[in-house]
Amino acid sequence: MSRIAYVNGRYLAHRGAQVHIEDRGYQFADGCYEVVAMRNGVFIDAGLHLQRLRRSLAALSIDFPMNDAALMVVMNEVARRNLVHEGFVYLQITRGVASRDFAFPGKTRPSLVMTARAKLLVDPKLMASGVKVITIPDQRWARPDIKSVALLPNALGKEAAKKAGAFEAWQVDRDGNVTEGTSSNAWIVTKAGEVVTRQADQGILNGVTRLGLLRVIAASGLRLSERPFSVAEAKAAAEALLTSSTNFVVPVVRIDDVAVGDGKPGPLAKKLAASYADYAAVGGSDRP
Amino acid sequence: MSRIAYVNGRYLAHRGAQVHIEDRGYQFADGCYEVVAMRNGVFIDAGLHLQRLRRSLAALSIDFPMNDAALMVVMNEVARRNLVHEGFVYLQITRGVASRDFAFPGKTRPSLVMTARAKLLVDPKLMASGVKVITIPDQRWARPDIKSVALLPNALGKEAAKKAGAFEAWQVDRDGNVTEGTSSNAWIVTKAGEVVTRQADQGILNGVTRLGLLRVIAASGLRLSERPFSVAEAKAAAEALLTSSTNFVVPVVRIDDVAVGDGKPGPLAKKLAASYADYAAVGGSDRP
Repeated sequence: MSRIAYVNGRYLAHRGAQVHIEDRGYQFADGCYEVVAMRNGVFIDAGLHLQRLRRSLAALSIDFPMNDAALMVVMNEVARRNLVHEGFVYLQITRGVASRDFAFPGKTRPSLVMTARAKLLVDPKLMASGVKVITIPDQRWARPDIKSVALLPNALGKEAAKKAGAFEAWQVDRDGNVTEGTSSNAWIVTKAGEVVTRQADQGILNGVTRLGLLRVIAASGLRLSERPFSVAEAKAAAEALLTSSTNFVVPVVRIDDVAVGDGKPGPLAKKLAASYADYAAVGGSDRP
Repeated sequence: MSRIAYVNGRYLAHRGAQVHIEDRGYQFADGCYEVVAMRNGVFIDAGLHLQRLRRSLAALSIDFPMNDAALMVVMNEVARRNLVHEGFVYLQITRGVASRDFAFPGKTRPSLVMTARAKLLVDPKLMASGVKVITIPDQRWARPDIKSVALLPNALGKEAAKKAGAFEAWQVDRDGNVTEGTSSNAWIVTKAGEVVTRQADQGILNGVTRLGLLRVIAASGLRLSERPFSVAEAKAAAEALLTSSTNFVVPVVRIDDVAVGDGKPGPLAKKLAASYADYAAVGGSDRP
């Protein structure tokens, strides 16, 4: 757990770190967030995270009065004060505090909250066993490409996965295609050896680890297709995997009650996980 | 504005009323709310509000450890401390504070926040002029029948209305039918004299004022149909109106750029507004 939190300009003991009850993040889910992983004391693809954050804020017309360099100073300071060398920084920006009214308030100062937590980003146990996912209907709003804190459907989906003894829930749209996990992107490797992940349009959150892995794949010469894939195709795939900022690349060995391939982490999933870890070890595409 | 807020057992000055940054309401929109109107010092249909609150909490598996009688004591006290005689009490319940993780935490104490604000519930200006609404795509998640704080799409919709000089935005589903406003229910009166409002299934929030007006209509002998209606049907209707806890019944005189009827508040809308105000004056169906 974060021991020191940054809240609107102040570094506070985590226990006493609070926001106002009329912060629009609390009353309307009117805000965005990012989770930026750090390894060896270096943020991974911080540039892509901040770029996405700006995009989310712009989509909600939230003006954020701090430049990227200043934000990075705070991110590093929060990590440092929490002795995080490997783990992540969580940052949340909301429209700010205003008397409750659905429409945007005239003028508010956006709220900025940051915490940090140590975490092993490559879990050897997960890598050795692979993980199970379940499939659930995608019940989210029409703009999951905006990384907002309106995460109730994601929380319900993850809880359903947990109850089913699974690591993640893959969300499925009306056409029967997998969109993404509740906090990760979904991938398969077809029997023909093609790596497939859904195209990043308004229907999914374009993960920074997804983008990183795309670069790794492009450099590897593997065949890749960004397109929809169905639950049936995923269950019949040679391999499956998922990506997220805090777990990198994790092999998926079971979808609902169907074993993927031989039910063990696939060779390509393991290779991609190793290549991504190399990519991340030097800060991703942010490396000097 | 509320001057005294109730936060987890304490009555605090509004300015200093805060919740923890890891309250799941702030990070995941993992909570519910109600807005209960009060007139002449009496809550209107408080029983229906608390019933709906329990239903929302149950849908999210949030155990709320306070019975209705205790909740009513706090609601009355918050109104009293804020000198509210006519206005409303806002109450929000979230799953509580826990180290950030999408799945539900093992055990948390739900958070309860309450504020109160004075407000004229029947605004003579709105009644005289009627209001304009715009239509927008319904972008919400699949369960708007749960009164959750995942209100970002609603806030964006209301802001769009405000920018267009309108009072409300009516949300339209994929079939071209009006679901409801961003914080109100939508009604029309057909040229044949039938009152129409969308059936309350998982696609809309079943408003307490909607339920109250249904009772008023049932007692009046008017013809009523709870069914979907399209934007085209609404624009061609004889009258239109909207209902909400904090504005009761308001005539709608314009939808996008089309005048409804003769562009003035309709006779039936005015009659229903008056009848509902009578109903509300004695606490709605809660009256002794």
